[in-house]
Amino acid sequence: MSHSRLPHEPDPEPTESLEDLVKDHRLLAAQQWLGTHQPHVIADALARMNAVDAGVAFRLLDKDRALAAFEELEPVNQQQILEGLRDRAFLDLVENMEPDDRVRMLNEAPAKVAKRVLAGLSPNERRMTSALLGYPEGSVGRYMTPEVVALPQNLTVEQALRTVRAKGADAETVYTLPVVDSGRRLTGIVELRELVLNPPDMMMSELVVTEPTSAYATASAERAARLMRETNDLNLPVVDSEDRLVGLFTIDDAVEVIEAADSEDVARQAGAAPWAGHYMAASVWQLARYRALWLMLLLVAATLTIGVTQAFEATLEQVAQLALFIPMLIGAGGNAGAQAATACVRALAVGEVRGSDLLKVIWRECRVGLVLGSLLAALGLLVGSLFVSLKIAVVVGITLVLICGWAATIGGTMPLLAKRLRIDPAVVSAPMVTTLVDATGLIIYFLTAKAVLGV
Amino acid sequence: MSHSRLPHEPDPEPTESLEDLVKDHRLLAAQQWLGTHQPHVIADALARMNAVDAGVAFRLLDKDRALAAFEELEPVNQQQILEGLRDRAFLDLVENMEPDDRVRMLNEAPAKVAKRVLAGLSPNERRMTSALLGYPEGSVGRYMTPEVVALPQNLTVEQALRTVRAKGADAETVYTLPVVDSGRRLTGIVELRELVLNPPDMMMSELVVTEPTSAYATASAERAARLMRETNDLNLPVVDSEDRLVGLFTIDDAVEVIEAADSEDVARQAGAAPWAGHYMAASVWQLARYRALWLMLLLVAATLTIGVTQAFEATLEQVAQLALFIPMLIGAGGNAGAQAATACVRALAVGEVRGSDLLKVIWRECRVGLVLGSLLAALGLLVGSLFVSLKIAVVVGITLVLICGWAATIGGTMPLLAKRLRIDPAVVSAPMVTTLVDATGLIIYFLTAKAVLGV
Repeated sequence: MSHSRLPHEPDPEPTESLEDLVKDHRLLAAQQWLGTHQPHVIADALARMNAVDAGVAFRLLDKDRALAAFEELEPVNQQQILEGLRDRAFLDLVENMEPDDRVRMLNEAPAKVAKRVLAGLSPNERRMTSALLGYPEGSVGRYMTPEVVALPQNLTVEQALRTVRAKGADAETVYTLPVVDSGRRLTGIVELRELVLNPPDMMMSELVVTEPTSAYATASAERAARLMRETNDLNLPVVDSEDRLVGLFTIDDAVEVIEAADSEDVARQAGAAPWAGHYMAASVWQLARYRALWLMLLLVAATLTIGVTQAFEATLEQVAQLALFIPMLIGAGGNAGAQAATACVRALAVGEVRGSDLLKVIWRECRVGLVLGSLLAALGLLVGSLFVSLKIAVVVGITLVLICGWAATIGGTMPLLAKRLRIDPAVVSAPMVTTLVDATGLIIYFLTAKAVLGV
Repeated sequence: MSHSRLPHEPDPEPTESLEDLVKDHRLLAAQQWLGTHQPHVIADALARMNAVDAGVAFRLLDKDRALAAFEELEPVNQQQILEGLRDRAFLDLVENMEPDDRVRMLNEAPAKVAKRVLAGLSPNERRMTSALLGYPEGSVGRYMTPEVVALPQNLTVEQALRTVRAKGADAETVYTLPVVDSGRRLTGIVELRELVLNPPDMMMSELVVTEPTSAYATASAERAARLMRETNDLNLPVVDSEDRLVGLFTIDDAVEVIEAADSEDVARQAGAAPWAGHYMAASVWQLARYRALWLMLLLVAATLTIGVTQAFEATLEQVAQLALFIPMLIGAGGNAGAQAATACVRALAVGEVRGSDLLKVIWRECRVGLVLGSLLAALGLLVGSLFVSLKIAVVVGITLVLICGWAATIGGTMPLLAKRLRIDPAVVSAPMVTTLVDATGLIIYFLTAKAVLGV
């Protein structure tokens, strides 16, 4: 059944997977599977398979479903499929893609594939594609659709609808209609809804929103997408530096941009490089590669903790029991720092906090950390006194207050500082804060111990 | 200027904030500020202010802008505003909200506010609101708009457009038009675009998508939203258990649901309770409350590390230098575990991994962990031999391989296990994995030391 309805209960597990059918060489059954599932389900199944199997399955699709499923794939997977296709099928596919989807694929394609794609396109499609590729990576220009129905000013509703009818067939959307002057400069937008609901002889100008929210083609696609989330606009008109209309940024692309940005932030917060492919399709080596660099950097940074512990070796030898609490204390500091860092990175991403809020954020995170530290100190005192003398338990308690205050301050400061220095705040990830807090937390711990215990 | 254009450069900082104007009692300037900014900018400014100042600023808004800005606010902030309003303004505001926005606000409102809102509504609005409130929290029913233009079957394009014109004014969207049979059962959808672009005498049935993707009103709103991201649908028809059309889930609400779900996952991954308000508007106490519980639970869990270290106290006393590497080793394990946990939670959230993939995921994460551990071991051996004897450095190296393999396996397993047990996978957060890995990692470390050093 191609009928797909989101059921009451979560997680309907598929009975037999496309992957198994192809692996078992049951190609007829695979073809039947492909004929009865929706494009996004097919795309998900293809993305989970290795390149060879996915290529086999893809060639079993009829032409229309092939295009639909192909457009749902991530760029990484699209390339894998393309590389396995003969010329005829290859050309059909790339010619019929939407220009913005094509550009997204080319963004991440090796030069060889990109060249083959561009060479195979008809002149009109090639012109549009090259224009989009001219915008910087991550900009609105890369994601917008250039095929827009623009309306001249001074039409009646009926004339406007006639224009839409004449020119709308190729456009990705006709729901937001930019209005332009004779120099193609954006002067407003009108919603198709307004044209349909109002009398034909009404002047369109009465329905035009004259100062619409818009974006320069070079603006950040993520910021534009988050702006659309706030304004609830379906489409954002995109203009060049001379205010001339060049395209529309549509909501489906905005949703994709937001989800990709959130995935990237999530990966960075866990200390891994952002990764665009399908989790199940990545090989063990690929997954390891995306995580290795940060893990090694963090290990090197962690040698600071060795140095600090060595510097206080005398203290540790005198009071061996201090070693018992090292994992717990740096754990607590790390957690408090990660909470603050994550909250601030997220608040920056969704626009609740700006770079200029730095001092305010430092002041609030410092206080939050001290409040949390005091709570933990009470608990730590209790736990500590179960294992060691009250005096050492007091050291643990005081350390918790100081470490949490310090960790939350650092966690709140670093993302905003990064933002001010124009570094992606998410790069200042929770593990980086944690590692920094580990070493400094140990210093706090040993100094407190020396002061309280007089060693 | 109410004209808002996303510029080339990031972060245009506001010159003078609404907050400062209200705090300085410069109400005329504040009113001017409010008259020249867009609703979503006003909403952001209000959300950053305390309840009293926000109330003052809100009452300076004219009626239309007040409603527009109010609808952009988070439910938490909406309540704050409402509580400060007199009856007349209060009633105007709640009567004119969209039913789904109203329900979202009521979801989180105290009973007193909810009662006042429902009592103040006109019978028709009250009926719609009560119906939506009948659906479970987090379900599509809570987010859908019930005001839909449904078309009967067997119309011409012209007749269909006439129906849209007659009934469309109140509907939140007319771009997706559900088609229903005489029993109001959903049989298809037609896009307004198709009606506008095709000849008036064509039969609508030729343009109808007969088996559209849809959702039961009781289905998860997050899953429905992610489904729309995959299918690129603007609106999802919503039906009751007898397949009767009850509403439309619109893309702007879907984007909001995705962003809220991602924020929630991010918060949980950092070991904090999810939090719906504006970061800058939360008091220090509120922020502390949202983080305290997890931090305390993790501290209690961390006492395991004290127990483990105590159990191996004899080993530690014999080879005091082993203490030097404790923070680095548990840090590396924690990072490897957090990477795996975060990748799997995200893959589950966006639907790349299902509960049934448990064994596959365990197997791949175990191998990824061992690969990463081997890399770190090489580095650790080098670092270790700078500080201590080669024998101890070898202990550090072996421990890194084992800890990373173990941590990645645990990190990959726990979210999928949670999913199978129908617990939110994000709750099995990175800090929880880290804390678990801390204690078990120490056991691995000390056992390895005993075996290699023969102590």
